Amino acid sequence: MTYCVAMCLEQGLLFGADTRTNAGVDHISTFRKLYTFQQAKSHAIVLLCSGNLATSQSLIELLRRDLSEQKEHILSQQSLFDVARLIGQKLYSIIQEVSHDDKTSAPNFSGNILLGGQIKGESPRLFQVYPQGNFIEATRETPYLQIGEHKYGKPILDRVVRFATPLTLALNSMIVSLDSTIKSNLSVGLPMDILVYEKDSFDLTRQRRFTEYDEDYLKMRQYWNSGVNQLLEQFPTPKV
Amino acid sequence: MTYCVAMCLEQGLLFGADTRTNAGVDHISTFRKLYTFQQAKSHAIVLLCSGNLATSQSLIELLRRDLSEQKEHILSQQSLFDVARLIGQKLYSIIQEVSHDDKTSAPNFSGNILLGGQIKGESPRLFQVYPQGNFIEATRETPYLQIGEHKYGKPILDRVVRFATPLTLALNSMIVSLDSTIKSNLSVGLPMDILVYEKDSFDLTRQRRFTEYDEDYLKMRQYWNSGVNQLLEQFPTPKV
Repeated sequence: MTYCVAMCLEQGLLFGADTRTNAGVDHISTFRKLYTFQQAKSHAIVLLCSGNLATSQSLIELLRRDLSEQKEHILSQQSLFDVARLIGQKLYSIIQEVSHDDKTSAPNFSGNILLGGQIKGESPRLFQVYPQGNFIEATRETPYLQIGEHKYGKPILDRVVRFATPLTLALNSMIVSLDSTIKSNLSVGLPMDILVYEKDSFDLTRQRRFTEYDEDYLKMRQYWNSGVNQLLEQFPTPKV
Repeated sequence: MTYCVAMCLEQGLLFGADTRTNAGVDHISTFRKLYTFQQAKSHAIVLLCSGNLATSQSLIELLRRDLSEQKEHILSQQSLFDVARLIGQKLYSIIQEVSHDDKTSAPNFSGNILLGGQIKGESPRLFQVYPQGNFIEATRETPYLQIGEHKYGKPILDRVVRFATPLTLALNSMIVSLDSTIKSNLSVGLPMDILVYEKDSFDLTRQRRFTEYDEDYLKMRQYWNSGVNQLLEQFPTPKV
């Protein structure tokens, strides 16, 4: 499985993804699920991928090929809505190509994409693209989207994240959301990739990968574990 | 759906359950999922039920009928292992009775049971009984079990609950676990039933139901929400 989360907030965008892939519990690997596409001060685009790895790798390769062949490509669109449409079409056709009639032993070729970024003339936007090719957009009322194993990490986001939440506070909650999922589900694992995009910056360089040996990561994990335990120690326990 | 959780700890047992049932989002009702069976100082038994409501209601009714008819019943067993076996057999046969060959439009009659308690001569024990009639038991290494929508409320338990965790601290984490699930998933809802069983007490009266208007519940919810937000404000945010 996979856990990816992205937020579209007043101050910018946040992206987080684990890197574990598995075909059964005895075939576990590490693959990047966060990809960026950038053009100077006009296009800053981030993709997070869940689902079948062959599908998502093909998608990224074909998007890059179009770019190098200067066909209609991801960085030639005027709106992130058009990028979502382009990715939806590609995603659908990749899945169709391998979905044969013989469905008896067919694995699941499906995949979901979180697409966020900013194109000159627009505010930052965030979409979830479905394997059928259609997509939804995050709004002020629902500023975050998740794909993959989304349940473990949802409560912390529901308690903290609103459209106006400062980027740093939201980033903290996103890291806890990812860490909680990694702790509770074997199919989601470190390293963890995060990317912080400040509105109107067109800068995708604020990225970081946390491994299990990363001292900052260990510090965060320990801070949260002991903080939560202390908070529960002083909980207003009801009379039962 | 449903969310039920139970723990078997050094100091005793804890049980928690929501009360929401739904057949689609347009058919939502409230039903108790926590049941107790007691005999003086020899048997203290608690059941939590998930899955098909017709199945779990039949199970409880048949267990009570056997009791009133003084057949081999839930309070005549020498060990909680035997109670688990009895319940497993009954659960399986109830499901079989309505599982006709015509499976095309058949709803899911399945159900899972958490069974905990203490029988004189044994320590408190906790089992999860499957619809096939077999069961597993909680141990020192894995002191809590969940049925239903278990993912939302798992991270807080994984961060806090060990076999030696004091009953009060574990109770606090259980309430947060239930509240987190209720907050993040519409199919799990208030009122919430909790039961605290102290080892060797054979007392099942420490029960409480929290509704959405319960002042203690609102106080706990607010404490946790603001506590978590404050904890995130002081988070050791990594440099990105």
